[in-house]
Amino acid sequence: MKLTPAAAGTFAIAPTPFFDDGRIDDASIDRLSDFYTEVGCDGVTVLGILGEAPKLEAAEAEAIARRFVKRAEKLQVIVGVSAPGFAAMRSLARAAMDAGAAGVMIAPPPSLRTDDQITGYFRQAAEAIGDDIPWVLQDYPLTIGVQMTPSVIRRIVMDSISCVMLKHEDWPGLEKISTLRGFQKDGSLRPLSILTGNGALFLDFEMERGADGAMTGYAFPEMLIDVVKLSQGGQRDAAHDLFDAHLPLIRYEQQPGAGLAVRKYILQKRGVIASSAQRKPGSAISATAKAEVDYLLSRVARVDPRANLRAQAAAAE
Amino acid sequence: MKLTPAAAGTFAIAPTPFFDDGRIDDASIDRLSDFYTEVGCDGVTVLGILGEAPKLEAAEAEAIARRFVKRAEKLQVIVGVSAPGFAAMRSLARAAMDAGAAGVMIAPPPSLRTDDQITGYFRQAAEAIGDDIPWVLQDYPLTIGVQMTPSVIRRIVMDSISCVMLKHEDWPGLEKISTLRGFQKDGSLRPLSILTGNGALFLDFEMERGADGAMTGYAFPEMLIDVVKLSQGGQRDAAHDLFDAHLPLIRYEQQPGAGLAVRKYILQKRGVIASSAQRKPGSAISATAKAEVDYLLSRVARVDPRANLRAQAAAAE
Amino acid sequence: MKLTPAAAGTFAIAPTPFFDDGRIDDASIDRLSDFYTEVGCDGVTVLGILGEAPKLEAAEAEAIARRFVKRAEKLQVIVGVSAPGFAAMRSLARAAMDAGAAGVMIAPPPSLRTDDQITGYFRQAAEAIGDDIPWVLQDYPLTIGVQMTPSVIRRIVMDSISCVMLKHEDWPGLEKISTLRGFQKDGSLRPLSILTGNGALFLDFEMERGADGAMTGYAFPEMLIDVVKLSQGGQRDAAHDLFDAHLPLIRYEQQPGAGLAVRKYILQKRGVIASSAQRKPGSAISATAKAEVDYLLSRVARVDPRANLRAQAAAAE
Amino acid sequence: MKLTPAAAGTFAIAPTPFFDDGRIDDASIDRLSDFYTEVGCDGVTVLGILGEAPKLEAAEAEAIARRFVKRAEKLQVIVGVSAPGFAAMRSLARAAMDAGAAGVMIAPPPSLRTDDQITGYFRQAAEAIGDDIPWVLQDYPLTIGVQMTPSVIRRIVMDSISCVMLKHEDWPGLEKISTLRGFQKDGSLRPLSILTGNGALFLDFEMERGADGAMTGYAFPEMLIDVVKLSQGGQRDAAHDLFDAHLPLIRYEQQPGAGLAVRKYILQKRGVIASSAQRKPGSAISATAKAEVDYLLSRVARVDPRANLRAQAAAAE
Repeated sequence: MKLTPAAAGTFAIAPTPFFDDGRIDDASIDRLSDFYTEVGCDGVTVLGILGEAPKLEAAEAEAIARRFVKRAEKLQVIVGVSAPGFAAMRSLARAAMDAGAAGVMIAPPPSLRTDDQITGYFRQAAEAIGDDIPWVLQDYPLTIGVQMTPSVIRRIVMDSISCVMLKHEDWPGLEKISTLRGFQKDGSLRPLSILTGNGALFLDFEMERGADGAMTGYAFPEMLIDVVKLSQGGQRDAAHDLFDAHLPLIRYEQQPGAGLAVRKYILQKRGVIASSAQRKPGSAISATAKAEVDYLLSRVARVDPRANLRAQAAAAE
Repeated sequence: MKLTPAAAGTFAIAPTPFFDDGRIDDASIDRLSDFYTEVGCDGVTVLGILGEAPKLEAAEAEAIARRFVKRAEKLQVIVGVSAPGFAAMRSLARAAMDAGAAGVMIAPPPSLRTDDQITGYFRQAAEAIGDDIPWVLQDYPLTIGVQMTPSVIRRIVMDSISCVMLKHEDWPGLEKISTLRGFQKDGSLRPLSILTGNGALFLDFEMERGADGAMTGYAFPEMLIDVVKLSQGGQRDAAHDLFDAHLPLIRYEQQPGAGLAVRKYILQKRGVIASSAQRKPGSAISATAKAEVDYLLSRVARVDPRANLRAQAAAAE
Repeated sequence: MKLTPAAAGTFAIAPTPFFDDGRIDDASIDRLSDFYTEVGCDGVTVLGILGEAPKLEAAEAEAIARRFVKRAEKLQVIVGVSAPGFAAMRSLARAAMDAGAAGVMIAPPPSLRTDDQITGYFRQAAEAIGDDIPWVLQDYPLTIGVQMTPSVIRRIVMDSISCVMLKHEDWPGLEKISTLRGFQKDGSLRPLSILTGNGALFLDFEMERGADGAMTGYAFPEMLIDVVKLSQGGQRDAAHDLFDAHLPLIRYEQQPGAGLAVRKYILQKRGVIASSAQRKPGSAISATAKAEVDYLLSRVARVDPRANLRAQAAAAE
Repeated sequence: MKLTPAAAGTFAIAPTPFFDDGRIDDASIDRLSDFYTEVGCDGVTVLGILGEAPKLEAAEAEAIARRFVKRAEKLQVIVGVSAPGFAAMRSLARAAMDAGAAGVMIAPPPSLRTDDQITGYFRQAAEAIGDDIPWVLQDYPLTIGVQMTPSVIRRIVMDSISCVMLKHEDWPGLEKISTLRGFQKDGSLRPLSILTGNGALFLDFEMERGADGAMTGYAFPEMLIDVVKLSQGGQRDAAHDLFDAHLPLIRYEQQPGAGLAVRKYILQKRGVIASSAQRKPGSAISATAKAEVDYLLSRVARVDPRANLRAQAAAAE
């Protein structure tokens, strides 16, 4: 089932699980796939920035994509295919789709500056992978350094019929969602799914501005799912109440560079991945930081029992 | 009373109040000074990035500094003197100190890259203003783009006897505080006040890592003061409880570029400044954003009545 | 006589002469003014990047502009007014025009990224100085980091009737000149003077592509004048012959950062300025570099006797 | 024969030849290899930035390296292995060495900022490829954006016994060579080959400052070889005479982005590669630019007959 502009809900951004020695941990990929399925995600995005994709060899990346697709059969799997060159991008995109992926995701290379450079790049990228592959445009200036205005996003989307979704993670970004939805109202932009990232730091208001859901790697996708649903159901206060309970931890996870270590630490604590190791060059989490995360978990758990990992571990025994 | 490495507590970062036509609003400067004094700040920092300093003419900047110093006589006033050239930096620094400021603050120019360029710049800057003026080193890579390691900060501080404080706003920055405090334990770094900025987004843990207090522009300095004191008093849970209640708004204010408009909007609502206008080129706040802020205020007010601006306005009548 | 889109020829970019202790050297300003007049420049641009403008206090900048305008009465004087804020920009621009300047020059602040940010900035800047002041758009991405496409330049020019000239120093930039001249042929861009900078490294072909002349700081403006005239007169080989003779030195001067020290060294050797000192933070020229420049001068002098500074010094005695 | 710190002479930077449809042109690789051998190069560096390496798939890169190594059997072949991740870097490095390469070249990723980040990266990179592989440190801030001081280069070299060469292409860079050679005189830096790039724009003086030779892609490696030898032989004027004759073309080729199109155009004209095509995203050369290059060739040919491509073509018939 291919990705369409009607896509909505919660897509987890999956980390890539490694053993301590840097090898890929296939069993943890399977557990991650099961976990995202069981908690009720609509999809999973693999080989993104969070997924340490640039550290992988081409064959490894393909194998990881295949494994997620095979195991997470009930989920739509989106595969990050950003690459310095179109040859590698096309190669991974076609392999992923052949394996059953729902679509691919493309971020701009950091060197792009002018509006024309940006739109020209995505025109060539879409042509390179072939227009039968639905793709997600990633807009993440904080990390990538490329700034796309709403008008530029519109040009990209209108240029490529196969661009079906925006992974929105500009910061600040609320007005951007409103502007894009306004473009659709005035008829200048065709239907487009907007899922929001940026660690979910603004998910509460992003939903109210017109987002279709979340696509980010917060270690409790259950919360993302609930907030998206509460917001879609018009239960504003309830959505904010749950979101606010998690916000201290969301914020802690959303630290550039350091955030991945926190997420892997929590996912390991949750029993989903075997090791919190990152491939080199990676970041580590200090003992003090671990204690801070544990404290935050205990505080979140006062409102959301799913964050009570100790109780869960006890129950599992 | 000049600034020393023993400085601690809460220093508010003051916005510069303008009329709608861009002129400086002196009456609002006075109200801001009174407000910071009344709520219990230990100091106020003027003409920082938040203060729209680069948009001011030299004479205007001097006049603003003088007015704050004169009115906020019970507070230590720190004056931002960052400038493209040392001549203007020295000129404003000496004028501010002559008027009674406690010290000045210097940020690195965005063009600096290597460790040697950074330490060399601050050596020349400290020499330019003269070593009788206590100065604050601003470390704000997110906005300025200059990355200083803890070792580089140590070199800067050890090079200049008059550097007495670090305005810490790296992101992520918790380990940086721990490392700097570690340098002091091992005797390689002399005493240094560390106040944290970054919109207070990590104030809760920054205090626990060894910060001496807060220096940021959050529109409720009362909360900063309380969290700093609770943390200093060892009341961890109480500090986090208050902090977490404000975090949804803290986060909303901490949006790059957009945040100043939010702060001025709230300060205007609080009756402290007459207009939320910024000098051109500035950012505006949409009607939707105002409604979002109002909603956040109403939610904060459930825990912290000081955020109930409607009640305050009623009481004031 | 105000600057118009018909401006052509050679405008020297003037360094700002300082004494060794950093004070401004007025006598050298006068000698520079006389020198540019005597060799036949059409204009002189002061307070540009080469002129160390950001290191000056506002009052100093005004004084320098006034002195150049007064002394170089036969030349059109353009004053660089780029500033972090519009207040300072307007202030210097109006003072310069009141003193008799022909126009002002504005470069974009380094933070601009998207096409809309760039065009929006210049719309506000032109409004800030007032539309009675002719201004020059500086396009220098290598140093400033802002990339403007030909379409963006067209939008800026069409937005502001008072934008009369482009200081072209993109690199590579030949196709940009061709594209802009093409816009004029197809009627989408109004008349615009294009003078080229970038240290004259491509002046030979820039003239052939349609530039109206040179605006740069090469220490032998005589060569710029001759190459511009030869090229305008259709004497292609002669233009290249003279240009090529100077190219080894042109290239040596065009080193980022270091180039200013080379230019001041040569201008001092030529007896035009008293000291090659720069204000801090500045760059110096090593003894080895001086010897390299002397060697290059001796080689240029084999073709162009004006580079034989020893002979000139002897003749002057 | 592995690369050592004693390496000297001229290493050509090879472009990667493609057919017009983007496929790799093996026959042209062989002709390039023969060409570099026949003109007298000491080595050839493949898969560098000029070689469009990021556009290749992993298997393609390996195949290209193998083909060059096999055909250019009399030359030392250096293989660019810069990659976003260490896995791919190691993989290509080991494959290249197994095939008979003399060493590999590593450039820093553009995200590095502080001295510690830079030295830490290269320590991990050297560890990743294994310390039995001699490697070349590429210092090219203009394109890559990473600034390494001489002290940082020294730390990198002293940290990794297998770092045997610096590809020096900082700009300005003359003082850097002098400083590094000074480090060796004072005993703080071990022997290190320094070959200079940057399009050869400063080769004349770089040799005089202590470089061991050239490593760049100028379309007439014959000139590089001669200038290096003349300079090594103390024939200063002759070296400059030949260099200066080529400088107008050197400068034209050294335009960022556009330069590769110029080089491929000339190499095609010289009959070495079959097509000047680049893989997408690539740059093209306009008809006007071609005519300018032809004109420059005709001017160079007045001094250096090897640039008379028409005569050569006639002689070849």
